[in-house]
This record gives sequence, structure tokens and C-alpha cells, in this order.
Amino acid sequence: MSEQFDAVDVIVAKRDGNRLSDAQIDWVIDAYTRGVVADEQMSALNMAILLNGMDRAEIARWTAAMIASGERMSFADLGRPTADKHSTGGVGDKITLPLAPLVAVFGVAVPQLSGRGLGHTGGTLDKLESIPGWRAALTNDEMMRQLADVGAVICQAGSGLAPADRKLYALRDVTGTVEAIPLIASSIMSKKIAEGTDSLVLDVKVGSGAFMKDLDRARELARTMVELGTDAGVTTTALLTDMSTPLGLTAGNALEVRESVEVLAGGGPADVVELTLALAREMLDAAGQPDADPAAALADGRAMDVWRRMIRAQDGDPDAPLPWARETEQVLAESDGVLTTLDAYAVGIAAWRLGAGRARKEDPVQAGAGVQIHVRPGERVTAGQPLLTLHTDTPERFDRARDALVGGIVVDAAAAPGAGPLVLDRITA
Amino acid sequence: MSEQFDAVDVIVAKRDGNRLSDAQIDWVIDAYTRGVVADEQMSALNMAILLNGMDRAEIARWTAAMIASGERMSFADLGRPTADKHSTGGVGDKITLPLAPLVAVFGVAVPQLSGRGLGHTGGTLDKLESIPGWRAALTNDEMMRQLADVGAVICQAGSGLAPADRKLYALRDVTGTVEAIPLIASSIMSKKIAEGTDSLVLDVKVGSGAFMKDLDRARELARTMVELGTDAGVTTTALLTDMSTPLGLTAGNALEVRESVEVLAGGGPADVVELTLALAREMLDAAGQPDADPAAALADGRAMDVWRRMIRAQDGDPDAPLPWARETEQVLAESDGVLTTLDAYAVGIAAWRLGAGRARKEDPVQAGAGVQIHVRPGERVTAGQPLLTLHTDTPERFDRARDALVGGIVVDAAAAPGAGPLVLDRITA
Repeated sequence: MSEQFDAVDVIVAKRDGNRLSDAQIDWVIDAYTRGVVADEQMSALNMAILLNGMDRAEIARWTAAMIASGERMSFADLGRPTADKHSTGGVGDKITLPLAPLVAVFGVAVPQLSGRGLGHTGGTLDKLESIPGWRAALTNDEMMRQLADVGAVICQAGSGLAPADRKLYALRDVTGTVEAIPLIASSIMSKKIAEGTDSLVLDVKVGSGAFMKDLDRARELARTMVELGTDAGVTTTALLTDMSTPLGLTAGNALEVRESVEVLAGGGPADVVELTLALAREMLDAAGQPDADPAAALADGRAMDVWRRMIRAQDGDPDAPLPWARETEQVLAESDGVLTTLDAYAVGIAAWRLGAGRARKEDPVQAGAGVQIHVRPGERVTAGQPLLTLHTDTPERFDRARDALVGGIVVDAAAAPGAGPLVLDRITA
Repeated sequence: MSEQFDAVDVIVAKRDGNRLSDAQIDWVIDAYTRGVVADEQMSALNMAILLNGMDRAEIARWTAAMIASGERMSFADLGRPTADKHSTGGVGDKITLPLAPLVAVFGVAVPQLSGRGLGHTGGTLDKLESIPGWRAALTNDEMMRQLADVGAVICQAGSGLAPADRKLYALRDVTGTVEAIPLIASSIMSKKIAEGTDSLVLDVKVGSGAFMKDLDRARELARTMVELGTDAGVTTTALLTDMSTPLGLTAGNALEVRESVEVLAGGGPADVVELTLALAREMLDAAGQPDADPAAALADGRAMDVWRRMIRAQDGDPDAPLPWARETEQVLAESDGVLTTLDAYAVGIAAWRLGAGRARKEDPVQAGAGVQIHVRPGERVTAGQPLLTLHTDTPERFDRARDALVGGIVVDAAAAPGAGPLVLDRITA
């Protein structure tokens, strides 16, 4: 079959600052999926998109073309509203774990198709796999049955949703074209729209530990995704939240599960509780339950009940002890003052080097490795006080983890105590 | 061996508008030649260079790195000055054929390492191969001997000069990144500097039949190349010349050789003679012979003598009849007036479709195919007067050649006769 377009003409159009037509977009995504457009052509187009941008209609069409590359799911047969959450990724971000069972308490189905960690941000599936027996891979039927029975499922995304995105993401990762807002937004939203959720809340992270380092870029990304979801009939809102410092007091796998269980038991770090409740309220609002009281469901054990059923449904044992790393070392304060900086990126890299994350897709992770945080930014410290505990099974990694922290911990004798806000902005359609 | 850099870091640096360091440039060209940097990474970098540019020092280093990827030649043992000419390519551009023997008349060695045509611009080697027996491929020894004996050689460039450029050019061709001035300039100049010529004159074409459609971009390209040559110790000048209409009265292979022989015999179209002499004077000037009289060497047969020896040295028969195409058709003027446009690109595409050029590297060309021009822009015509004669061995091609000419021929009843200048500007160090 002769092709409708020539790849070079499509690249040159975007290179020269023109709009791509609907037909050009449909063709280039389909032809790339078929292997007719080569990797080196798509990477040149991606760079032109990164530098010259796409308008709202182009991004919507690009997203639609990626959805059309694969299957679409539907939760219509469940007979109740579905609500999904997506975070753009940060350090210590375990919110999905308490959030999914918490929202399910109110009869809203929560399908969380999740991924694994790569680089300094952890992966939800890696965290849950530290629970003995728990398995990430479910068939579509198993997932649907669990949603009907338990109301919440956190599992591995199947390969059938937006396969063009999988191929494109792997390419962007090695060609310096990850940071394009149209490409980030369409990558996330193509999978969420294809999944078939009724509503979606986006947690767009801002700061050193996030993709987006500044608030303006994060706001642009959030607005782009809210527009895409809205245009596709998904009720979508976004919270912009601080990722200049890790979320909570742990970064790692088992360490974060333990903290999540504390939150489900009605305790846990204040910032994790605050963000869990803020996102739960967005999801419950979108699902038509503005009067639901998620704080009560944490306090009275209903969220914990759903958690335990959710873990058991995937062959995990919620009562089994979670693994600890074999070795620990402490990081101490070097002077008196207020901790003004505990840099999220530095802590993320340290946790990664300790064994919590992976450098390549096929690497294993250590269930017990990571960083425990004893002092939050804005708090007073005295010299010699423990700030962090580093955990690993492989103590030869301590030195490189400490290297990552150099410059990431600042104690200022003259600073006043007190921390900034967690939720920075809210974007709606 | 572990690599000095990561390809993504180099891409991201240029993507974000930063300078590449010397070490980054050296590494990325070398690693691409070795296959460590993948095509999809290099194409993203090329697009970033196209859109964000490179400064003079970056382009110089990029060029040096491409030179370092292969061998360097030297003409030092010849004991006389060498002068080379490079044209950025146009329609009917046969200037190399009369120019090389003309300059050699004055004791200046002229090594012309040439290429084949691709797309609408013809190739010097394809033209000369219409001469019975002539061969393009010489060993380095054969080339040196011919330069010593005859003083001029036009032959195929060996694969040893700047192999990185060959790989890079093939990639740019399919990824929409041909039109980047830093990449065009470094591609041309890496081969010319590696070749080892003492001086170089550049014929930078401007107009519909050229890479550069407007004068400002052509001037920027010329200045970039003159700077590169000068910085590398090669005496370099550039003429910007008009390519809005074909050069001379022929576009094709044997057709252009015939016209070149007319010029060497002291005749030929005025524009071809003018440009041949202008370029010859630049080369003779650069070789320390400002008082040489190239017009006299065309008139008195000395240039023709060198031509005949040059063709014979490569097994060609300068007395053999040149091939004609089997079929011809005429294109007639449709109205009275002045021919205001005879578009170079349209004529180039017509000649290509008639069989003079190739669509893919491995295609053969027809020696006799092409376009003869009977009327030049600025001249009066009457309805029914022949404007062009189309030549081909394959008459089924006439229709598609005529299609290419639609809109490319304009006769204006109200216009005044007279043509514009051929040489538009001169750029020196």
C-alpha cells in the first residue's frame, strides 16, 4: 500500500512552525506504530514539537491517534462511578496506596493502572511488591471482578492500551525529548482516556523532585491535561503540589508501604494525610459525592478494611511483616539551626542508589532499601541530631548515597521555623 | 570502555539553547561514527541544532570532528598551488567542466572531488559519464599522477574523507534536517578541508533551483563556510549567484557536456562564460596569479587542450560523438510578450523526470535526457515559438515532465525585456 504522507514533509511542517493537520497526525502515529515511520524520523519530529509546540487541537488529535493505536476499556458494566488519580511522579509519593481504598469506601470504583519506578522516582508496583505474595499482573477479567467485589484495584497496566505511547515513550527517553508538554500530556491522557474512567484527578508535582521544576510550566502541563480530559468527556481536575522536599517521612518500597498503612490506621505524617484527603475529596466530588467525609473513613477503620481486602484479592498477606534492609546508617545535622532544605531530588537519588530504584528496566529493586526522614524542612535541629536513616542490603552503597545528599541538606542558623504550603494551585475545566 | 558522555545530556544541552563543549562535540561525532550514539539520538540533536543554531566556534569544532573521523589528503608534494571550487548545487550547473581545465592552464592544480546527482540537481560525474569510456573512480595515486601530469582532475570522492559526514548526510536526508546552515556548512567544508586544497572558491546558489531560496540565508551560509575555511588555513571566498533560472541553455548530462565544450571552444551561453570566468579569477587570485587572463585561455584553445588531456587521462574519448536521446518534444510559447520566469526548480524537476536524474542512489540515469532552453528570461517571445525541447529515451515520461513545468513558465505581455544580474554578492574572510 502506498503511504498517504511522506514522513519528511510532516517533520518539516512542524520544524517550520506550522500546525500539523488531523490527517498528518493520524498518519504519523499509525505509521510509526507500524514501523513505516522510523525511530530517527519520529525523534526529529518529537524535538520539533518540543521546541515549536502544538496547539490545543493538535494535542487533542495526537492523543486521540495514540488511543486509536490500541484497545479501549469500559467500566460501564460496573454500574457505579469510577474515579482515577494520576501523579506526575515524585519522591516519597505513596499517596495511591491509602487513596484507592479510601475512595472505594464510598462506593466509587477506583481502577489504578500503575507502573514501575525508573530513575529517582519510585514505582507504585515496586512498593506493593514488598508485601509478601502480592502480585501486580491481573487479567482484565480479574481486574473487573476485583473492582466489582472490593471497589479498588492497583495493578499493572496491560500492554493493549495506547501501544503507540509505549513505543514513543521509550524513544523520548533516549532522545532528550521527554520534557515536551504536549508529549507528556498526551502520553498520560491517552492511557487514562483509553482506560475508560469517568473522572480523573491529576496530582501535578512541582519542584526539584518533579519533572516540572517551576510553577508556570507545571500549570501549563496541568491545564493541557485538564483540557484533554474534558474534551474527551472525562471529568478532570488537577492539583499542583509541592515536590521540593519528599512527601512524608519515607522514600523506598517497604518503608513507604509501612507509612501508608499508618495513614490507613488513622495516623501517619501530616502532609501525606493532607494530600490523601485533598485528592480523595476531588475524586468524591467528581463522582457526585460532595458530602462524603474521607477523614472519618481513615479514622474509623473503613479505609483499612478495604485496603486489607484489596491486598488479599491480589494474593498479598496484609498481616505479614514487611521486609527491612540488612544495614542502616544515620545522617546527622552538622550545626544548630532550622532545616531550610531537604531536597527531594537529592533524597530520591540517595534512595535509588541505596537500591530502592532501578537504572534499567530489567534491574531488580531491594524491598527494604530507602531513606527514613526524621526532620522536615522548617523544623529546628541541633548539631549531631539524626536527620535521616539510610537503609540498604548492600552497605557498599552508603557512600554514593551520601554523595547524592551533598548540598541537598541545608541548616540555617538565622532562619525562622515554618514550612510552605503543600497544595499550590487547583486547575479545573 | 565506558563512554565519556551520555548522548541524552548532549542533546538536552543543545535543546535548551546551550553551547556544546569541544569535548561534547568530539565525543558525539566519534560515538555516532562508532554506532554508540544511535540514529534516533543524532536526528534529535540535528533538529535541535537546526532550530537553536551553533556559534562559530561550535561549527568549527563540529567540522574538525568530522575531518578527524577519516583520512586527510595532502597536495604538498605537487610543488604548485591547488585551487578547488564547490557549488551548493543548481539546475544546469556545468561550470566545473570548463572551469577545472581553464584554471589548470595557469599552472594551478585543480582537484575536483565530485558527486552524483540526487533529486532535481544534476551530478558532475553523471554528466562526464556520458563521454564514451570516461571513468569516475580513480585511486589516490592515479588522481595525484593526473594532477601532476595534466593539472586538473574531476573524479569521485573516495570513501575515506569524513566518513562521519556520509553517515550524517544520509540521516539528515530522511529526517527533515538538511536545511540547517551549521550542518550544511560543516558537511561541505569537512570534505574540502580534509582534501587538503590550498584555496577554495564557493559558488553559493540562491533561488528556486537552490537549497537556499533567499539571499539572506545564502549569505549566512556563505559567510559560515568562508569562516570555516579561513579558520582551517584554506584561503576561501564565496560568490552568491542567481539560481532562479537554469544556468545556460541545457539541463541534462550529455546536453551539458556539449554546452561545456562550446564554452571551451570560445563560444557558449553568455551566463555560463561569465560565471566560469568569475570563478576562474577567484581561483587564480587565491593561487597568487591576479594578472592571469582566463578569457584569453578560452579564446585561444589552451583550456580546450587541457580538457582533452583531462578526459583522455580518465580513458574518455574527447572526439567521440556524445549520445542524444531517442525522442524529443517541444514546449511552445502560448502568448506574445516577455518571458519573465523560467523557473529553475521546474526545469530541474522536468529534466529529472525525463531521465537525467535519479530518485534513488542506485537508479541509472539516461545520458541523453534533459531540457534544452531556447529562450532566456528577459527575452521577447511570440505565441507558438519554441521555448524548450524535452529529450528522453522513454517518451511516456513527456507528460510528467510537462506537468512539472506548469506555473514555471510565465510570459507577460506588459513586461519590459532585460534580465537581472548573475553574480549577486561576494563574501571574503
